[in-house]
Amino acid sequence: MNAIGKIIDEHAVRCEEKTLVSSKETVQAFADIVSAIVDSYEAEPITRYIDVGCLPSHAAIIEIIRLLRELLFPGYFGRQGLVSGSIAYHVGALLDDIRDKLQAQLLNALRHEVMSKCGRVEGIENHAEKISYSFLGTIPRLRSTLATDIQAAFDGDPAASNTDEIIFSYPGFKAITVYRIAHELSILKVPLIPRIMTEYAHSVTGIDIHPGSVIGDHFFIDHGTGVVIGETAVIGNNVKIYQGVTLGALSTRAGQSLRGVKRHPTLEEGVTVYSGASILGGETVIGAGAVIGGNVFITKSVPAGTRVSVKSPELQYRNHMPQEFTQEPPDWVI
Amino acid sequence: MNAIGKIIDEHAVRCEEKTLVSSKETVQAFADIVSAIVDSYEAEPITRYIDVGCLPSHAAIIEIIRLLRELLFPGYFGRQGLVSGSIAYHVGALLDDIRDKLQAQLLNALRHEVMSKCGRVEGIENHAEKISYSFLGTIPRLRSTLATDIQAAFDGDPAASNTDEIIFSYPGFKAITVYRIAHELSILKVPLIPRIMTEYAHSVTGIDIHPGSVIGDHFFIDHGTGVVIGETAVIGNNVKIYQGVTLGALSTRAGQSLRGVKRHPTLEEGVTVYSGASILGGETVIGAGAVIGGNVFITKSVPAGTRVSVKSPELQYRNHMPQEFTQEPPDWVI
Amino acid sequence: MNAIGKIIDEHAVRCEEKTLVSSKETVQAFADIVSAIVDSYEAEPITRYIDVGCLPSHAAIIEIIRLLRELLFPGYFGRQGLVSGSIAYHVGALLDDIRDKLQAQLLNALRHEVMSKCGRVEGIENHAEKISYSFLGTIPRLRSTLATDIQAAFDGDPAASNTDEIIFSYPGFKAITVYRIAHELSILKVPLIPRIMTEYAHSVTGIDIHPGSVIGDHFFIDHGTGVVIGETAVIGNNVKIYQGVTLGALSTRAGQSLRGVKRHPTLEEGVTVYSGASILGGETVIGAGAVIGGNVFITKSVPAGTRVSVKSPELQYRNHMPQEFTQEPPDWVI
Repeated sequence: MNAIGKIIDEHAVRCEEKTLVSSKETVQAFADIVSAIVDSYEAEPITRYIDVGCLPSHAAIIEIIRLLRELLFPGYFGRQGLVSGSIAYHVGALLDDIRDKLQAQLLNALRHEVMSKCGRVEGIENHAEKISYSFLGTIPRLRSTLATDIQAAFDGDPAASNTDEIIFSYPGFKAITVYRIAHELSILKVPLIPRIMTEYAHSVTGIDIHPGSVIGDHFFIDHGTGVVIGETAVIGNNVKIYQGVTLGALSTRAGQSLRGVKRHPTLEEGVTVYSGASILGGETVIGAGAVIGGNVFITKSVPAGTRVSVKSPELQYRNHMPQEFTQEPPDWVI
Repeated sequence: MNAIGKIIDEHAVRCEEKTLVSSKETVQAFADIVSAIVDSYEAEPITRYIDVGCLPSHAAIIEIIRLLRELLFPGYFGRQGLVSGSIAYHVGALLDDIRDKLQAQLLNALRHEVMSKCGRVEGIENHAEKISYSFLGTIPRLRSTLATDIQAAFDGDPAASNTDEIIFSYPGFKAITVYRIAHELSILKVPLIPRIMTEYAHSVTGIDIHPGSVIGDHFFIDHGTGVVIGETAVIGNNVKIYQGVTLGALSTRAGQSLRGVKRHPTLEEGVTVYSGASILGGETVIGAGAVIGGNVFITKSVPAGTRVSVKSPELQYRNHMPQEFTQEPPDWVI
Repeated sequence: MNAIGKIIDEHAVRCEEKTLVSSKETVQAFADIVSAIVDSYEAEPITRYIDVGCLPSHAAIIEIIRLLRELLFPGYFGRQGLVSGSIAYHVGALLDDIRDKLQAQLLNALRHEVMSKCGRVEGIENHAEKISYSFLGTIPRLRSTLATDIQAAFDGDPAASNTDEIIFSYPGFKAITVYRIAHELSILKVPLIPRIMTEYAHSVTGIDIHPGSVIGDHFFIDHGTGVVIGETAVIGNNVKIYQGVTLGALSTRAGQSLRGVKRHPTLEEGVTVYSGASILGGETVIGAGAVIGGNVFITKSVPAGTRVSVKSPELQYRNHMPQEFTQEPPDWVI
């Protein structure tokens, strides 16, 4: 019997098993399960984090993103009704809070990286402090870049009534905001935290941008669900992409041996990529101003100013005579 | 050097920079960052909302959706164990809470629209009240329409054990519920809030339905991740669509000049659209009872009763002899 | 006038209606709305759950998943800084909490299934207790299987720096973890809860795995948004799939008459499926070691060791001369 047959058979056996734990045995059963779980912590080292130290906290990192969005877009998130006269106090208090929370998480991430215990590691607090100040110093520049992204979204989307709506509710803009924050931290060689940040954005927007990718200004992602931008992708200014676009690797079967190699494409300035298109490979360059049509699958470079589309989609039309749409299924499939 | 080369070079320089802030300079550094951020608020007007007024609150709008789902589907969400004898008191208390919360957010949205301060605007409370009563009056009709959507999901999905499961856990049904709420508010010309509602549903379901689209009854979205239904799409009764389907625009390069133009397709009654299909263009009409196959890409109208599929998918088969699935990568790509 | 014309006309009329509720009528209007909603509860039985009993709670089930992840991956989630010396106490306390919360939800789900009131049902507490102990006893085995999934992710993804990052932030691993928990409960014939669990994972990861599907070890889903794995799919060991892959049914137009029939494909060991591919049909078997290329659409079986890709993607290249990327739209579409 082949491997898949074995899986199916084992599954059938488990579905048939009727012998549940008897209730009079529950006290012993509880103790046995505790022991078995503790034993399994011994047996499977890669799924435990015991006697090692501290890790960053998801909840704390999501809170930092929330506070940073309040700092980046004052009045849109968090406290409302802000006035110019007192804005410096608001900024100071917010920045103080962000710095403390960020440094705590940086410390955990750096300690994790040096595989040490929760105790003191020489110079690590100092390093975390330097990273946090270096990061916070980039906020005015981040605001300028994000303003170009908002403008690109407004210019590019006829459904946008105003720029407030974009800041407030566009998932593409939220994903880009979190990416730009995470990318700054990745430049500062912060471990773990940048990826946790972009995976948080992925979770709430369906847009998966690796923090290592390099993206120019005036970037717009419309709708966005299913977008994947790989670790070594490079994107110029004024690029616009739609839902379901993959900027991916040709093959990752070689796994860890490909670490650090440029595996994802380059999009030059002014490129548009319509929904569902896949552009793959580290040597693939989409030239300036090119337009990649919906569902196109590309593994080679495209010259500047070219429009690429799927040639004659070769559709098949057949008549059928539905009598009743929801009751009587037609006798064909798909 | 071209633009993309400049982006790559600048990025390389930033990655090389070793000069982090020195810890002894942190007090001054903190004050400098506060000043720089306050200055950037001056410099980038589109990313601040200061001295202007109030905006709707995301958290409050999500809470309103939560309460409305409790009102629409009593016993499924929120309070459990409801009995007929006292149900009117439960409805009254819930409705009172929803009305107050909705009116507060309507006020913020309307004030934002008239670009005024948080203070009183003549007649705006009255207008918010009228909108909230008009909306709440549609709830019985919403319940009837949503009951048809549940029936369509049950009839159409062999994996559904019962209708409770659909109300309780189907993302497609959740997205349609929020769309139907948001659409009622968009008919009442409420600014900002309808889009915040549907983007919330987009975030938790991966299904992006613009509140402006018009959708008939017995509507079923299966699985749903990646579905996009554009602002001017029109969908008849008894339509069924699958994950990854786009009802989109042909091109939005013309941006804001296209506002208000019909850019998205019409699907007549009884249409089925299988996963990954894209139907684009405001003049594209899919006739009654037509079936659009998986991954089909359509920009022209389709007659009623037609089945469209990708003609002979033209696949290429090649042998390879994998020795070890996870260790030795084959020498080809993709 | 056809059905779609009627929908459009009715919508236009509703958009034109100016007669909002007058504020002086609000007291009466409120009472009327309450009555109308209560009446609609009578009229639409499938959207109410009154006089029937209790249902499982979403919030409680999500909390159980959170606690189970803490138990499965100690030190990664929840309490930090764990040490071996006291780990048994930590496990005992956590397991006690999980058991109580799980039994309460099992009781609600089982009671719902027997369509009874909230009151006592003979033997049901005993049955819930047996199920909870049987489930908790599988945790050590779940940990072993999940360890193989982590290893597969690390081996297969050059962007993974270490296994901690995978446990911590990979959505594919999160979805697989929740699936494996839900699948154990579905084997124990628990109603409602398994699907609520996997739909929660679907919501936060974009990956939709039906709890009924059977999946071998060393399973890796990369990126993952848009993945759909149907109820009767069977997947061997060492399988790797990418974002947007559907393992689906050929047609579900026959609806409920297809319940229990194998409608979804089988993937044998070592199969790779690249992004956007669709594999449909219950009799479709992808042989061991086969590689299915990006965007491939398959409805027939594929022999072991075969590589399938879209033959010559037939792209169309056209020149255009963009003058200004964001201002002047070219005169073509897509």
